[in-house]
Amino acid sequence: MLFYDCSTAPNPRRARMFIAEKGLEIETREISIAKGEQLSEAFRAVNPRATIPVLVTDEGTVLTENLGIAAYLEARFPEPPLMGRTPDEAGAVLMWNAIIEQQGGQPIAETLRNTHPAFKDRAIPGAENYAQIPELAQRGIDRVGAFFGLLETRLQDSAFLAGDDFSLADITAFVFVDFARVIKQRIPAENVATRAWFDGIKIRASARL
Amino acid sequence: MLFYDCSTAPNPRRARMFIAEKGLEIETREISIAKGEQLSEAFRAVNPRATIPVLVTDEGTVLTENLGIAAYLEARFPEPPLMGRTPDEAGAVLMWNAIIEQQGGQPIAETLRNTHPAFKDRAIPGAENYAQIPELAQRGIDRVGAFFGLLETRLQDSAFLAGDDFSLADITAFVFVDFARVIKQRIPAENVATRAWFDGIKIRASARL
Repeated sequence: MLFYDCSTAPNPRRARMFIAEKGLEIETREISIAKGEQLSEAFRAVNPRATIPVLVTDEGTVLTENLGIAAYLEARFPEPPLMGRTPDEAGAVLMWNAIIEQQGGQPIAETLRNTHPAFKDRAIPGAENYAQIPELAQRGIDRVGAFFGLLETRLQDSAFLAGDDFSLADITAFVFVDFARVIKQRIPAENVATRAWFDGIKIRASARL
Repeated sequence: MLFYDCSTAPNPRRARMFIAEKGLEIETREISIAKGEQLSEAFRAVNPRATIPVLVTDEGTVLTENLGIAAYLEARFPEPPLMGRTPDEAGAVLMWNAIIEQQGGQPIAETLRNTHPAFKDRAIPGAENYAQIPELAQRGIDRVGAFFGLLETRLQDSAFLAGDDFSLADITAFVFVDFARVIKQRIPAENVATRAWFDGIKIRASARL
């Protein structure tokens, strides 16, 4: 297997944490988004959509997108399970993962990419250029506030997002919550359940990579 | 099991097609988005996030989000497989599903919800209100053009999106391509591979529900 990573970006970090939680060591190549290497001819020969992470499997399948990589690794290396053991757990993990991507990952990315000069004409990841839309930035901040509320409500009832066990959904949420610092948003001090959950994940070996 | 559906909206249609492809008949309740029933106190007691589809499992788990519902049904009713048989296939299905959601579903929804008067202050599905941002509408049209190109490139090489077999990724793409009519976008006449793929799915019994 061959893993294309980027140490500064949240989406590759999700895949990196998933790989570490599985106890796998996979040959890795760093692609610098700061240097625009994802747009190079060499990398686009691997992934024409110019996004990271990418996992090339032993069978030669080129998998992009965190869910593609996770589904492959979970099926091939089932232990420890990160996508649920029972049908109900499998459903809950992908449900929470989708909620976190839409309600957390999307507004954080929209705020960053529609304001920061480094993302001028790069408002959407990938091979095509799109202009920034400044209104999306304030909407993103508002939505991140709602996202922190959603997390707190859930984590007051449940040790982890999808239930009693740490899962892919926690990796997704942890990485996005941590990344929210780039738009100056942090877990509100009064959200004690979320803070306890975050601190518990932060000390895992996979979170330090 | 109990399925909450809405006959006019694309996301519930994806779950409805998945259920039909599994050959399941599940007790169904219609929630009219036109009447705002998803925001009613009764429905929000089921799903506080006020989105459809929802599947309540026999074990009582309330699953929202298409991927949550699909992962549960695939694990509980494996035949026919709609999320891949091998690890590589499982990865390819969720990869393509994610690409289609981001590159197709998102721009179509952004164009519709940021222009149509019926979605005034409802630019994002769910319990919170968000104002329309007109710039997103034109960006959405541009992105749908790129999406049709992406589909054609893939379907020139592959019978279905994730490989040789019909899968969840085809359901997602078929529903979004069909729904693009609401923003007056259709498969370009010269995209013959996409048209053949679309016409082949359109005649499946699951597509007529």
